[in-house]
Amino acid sequence: MLVKEIGEQGLLAIVQGFCPPEMVGDDAAILSVPGDQSLVITTDMLVDEVHFSDRTTSPIDVGWRSAAVNLSDLAAMGAFPIGITVALGITGDKSVAWVEQLYQGLTECLSHYNTPIIGGDICKSSVTCISITAFGTVNPKLAIKRSVARSGDIIIVTGYHGDSRGGLELLLHPELGTALTSDQRSSLIRAHQRPQPRLDILPKLQTLLASYPSTAIAGMDSSDGLADAIVQICRASKLGAKVQRRLIPISETLQTFVTPQQALEWALYGGEDFQLVLCLPPSLGETLVQQLGTDASIIGEITSNPKILLIDDAEPSTVEELSLSRGFQHF
Amino acid sequence: MLVKEIGEQGLLAIVQGFCPPEMVGDDAAILSVPGDQSLVITTDMLVDEVHFSDRTTSPIDVGWRSAAVNLSDLAAMGAFPIGITVALGITGDKSVAWVEQLYQGLTECLSHYNTPIIGGDICKSSVTCISITAFGTVNPKLAIKRSVARSGDIIIVTGYHGDSRGGLELLLHPELGTALTSDQRSSLIRAHQRPQPRLDILPKLQTLLASYPSTAIAGMDSSDGLADAIVQICRASKLGAKVQRRLIPISETLQTFVTPQQALEWALYGGEDFQLVLCLPPSLGETLVQQLGTDASIIGEITSNPKILLIDDAEPSTVEELSLSRGFQHF
Repeated sequence: MLVKEIGEQGLLAIVQGFCPPEMVGDDAAILSVPGDQSLVITTDMLVDEVHFSDRTTSPIDVGWRSAAVNLSDLAAMGAFPIGITVALGITGDKSVAWVEQLYQGLTECLSHYNTPIIGGDICKSSVTCISITAFGTVNPKLAIKRSVARSGDIIIVTGYHGDSRGGLELLLHPELGTALTSDQRSSLIRAHQRPQPRLDILPKLQTLLASYPSTAIAGMDSSDGLADAIVQICRASKLGAKVQRRLIPISETLQTFVTPQQALEWALYGGEDFQLVLCLPPSLGETLVQQLGTDASIIGEITSNPKILLIDDAEPSTVEELSLSRGFQHF
Repeated sequence: MLVKEIGEQGLLAIVQGFCPPEMVGDDAAILSVPGDQSLVITTDMLVDEVHFSDRTTSPIDVGWRSAAVNLSDLAAMGAFPIGITVALGITGDKSVAWVEQLYQGLTECLSHYNTPIIGGDICKSSVTCISITAFGTVNPKLAIKRSVARSGDIIIVTGYHGDSRGGLELLLHPELGTALTSDQRSSLIRAHQRPQPRLDILPKLQTLLASYPSTAIAGMDSSDGLADAIVQICRASKLGAKVQRRLIPISETLQTFVTPQQALEWALYGGEDFQLVLCLPPSLGETLVQQLGTDASIIGEITSNPKILLIDDAEPSTVEELSLSRGFQHF
């Protein structure tokens, strides 16, 4: 069955089945926001053959990723999700099953965070595109912002970087990666297809902050690459950074898959790892890293010198500047 | 200058110029919602050659309409706007001026309602599409819903119906409408290109409601046509309606342009008039219509009989049922 055969009303009935019944059926959805919380809003559009492709991503994975991208933006603000809307532009010759699987992927990801789809729109389009707007709440004192890093802050990243780009490479070129075990291949591909928004970090961070009153949290997510995140934070805070090349967390699997130079390139510029990059006063940051164990790493520090440098204490001659221009840019 | 020449960062800098500087630059925007208000959220996607076309709509008008469509959905819930997000998928060969004019149209419409663009996304796409999510607030007791009409309610519509469809016809076929004056042509075209969300009705309605405690307001907007709005309200409320054909407000201009039968067809099924359709107890509804003067009309009543009938007391034999199937349907 194709979308153009079931029609708009038929398709709406199917996708509304993925929403809480009390939320849909009016011109707009109504949500309550607790009085001591601010509302946090983020929006992202994903377009067929730009952000995903039937060659590398099943509709379930497109759904998962679409939800995860937006929840990661909420996590990057320190906010907990309360709902998303989904606007879907779709070609008439997509199958109805494709749409159902897209919503299945969306709700699979969202269900981990008790987040409903509260509304949306469906329309015909000559290219399939998905626009998601996600809503969250944060105590305004605990909001994470790019512009509030201080000179002397340590830079902390969660998880590994580069795995998502490695997974994409395996999907595009399955003949590569012969040195990898089946589990290793799956782990890289999963990093690309099923990224995990790091909402799990927030309760730990916010509990710790109770002991550091009036400390602002600087940070963002690494959706456009680790280098991009560091540059964006430094620009917004009008500061610089020194990042230690050897401290950037790269998984053993990725190191097995490609050369150290390639792995570093993907960690810095590959993007789509959806980890958090936080800048915190050293004592607070070190306590957080102790609590998170191998799931977090200190990779450098914020400096008053505005240059953003990648350094290697063991090879002082290899200093280079981090830039935005090597990451993915639209157009 | 083309979009692909200025690139993502250049384009972002331009569109961020249309946003309050304190709202943009992070992973998400932060808004506060007063504690006694609920948050209302609506989303709509507009796609090139489906919802607009360079043949009939300038980029400024695309912007105006995109904002108006979403603000009308807020009005249809009884909510006042507090902000919108704009996700734009765009082909690389559109001109940068096109994007600027789009945002100019958006902000022109929004400025009438003191509503900022608080965030968004820009990405490459093989077809230009705009996805807007609008946020508003409403006292939950004053929310307008489709499902709360009562048998005996009178059906009130604001403004005229059919003018937007008339304006579209003039844009598609400029050789028509030779009987119209220049002002009449402009008035129909303006109804199509510059629809006005009926947020102006809300203060009057909500003030009146203070004298009718615990009266629920049933209604929606007529974005998909007057017939669609009446059918949707009746379905959601599990009731029917009798609509008097001769009471449907059709402008003199439209009556000059086309035959009475064509004008009625466009009023019922043309869509995009973005008026409000309200169902209210007779005394409340009549008071509202007195206050609004020629800007509102009583066109019928809600019935316990579930049929949705278009009747004409002067020609009892002409009864017909209103349906969804004659309005615009995607796919």
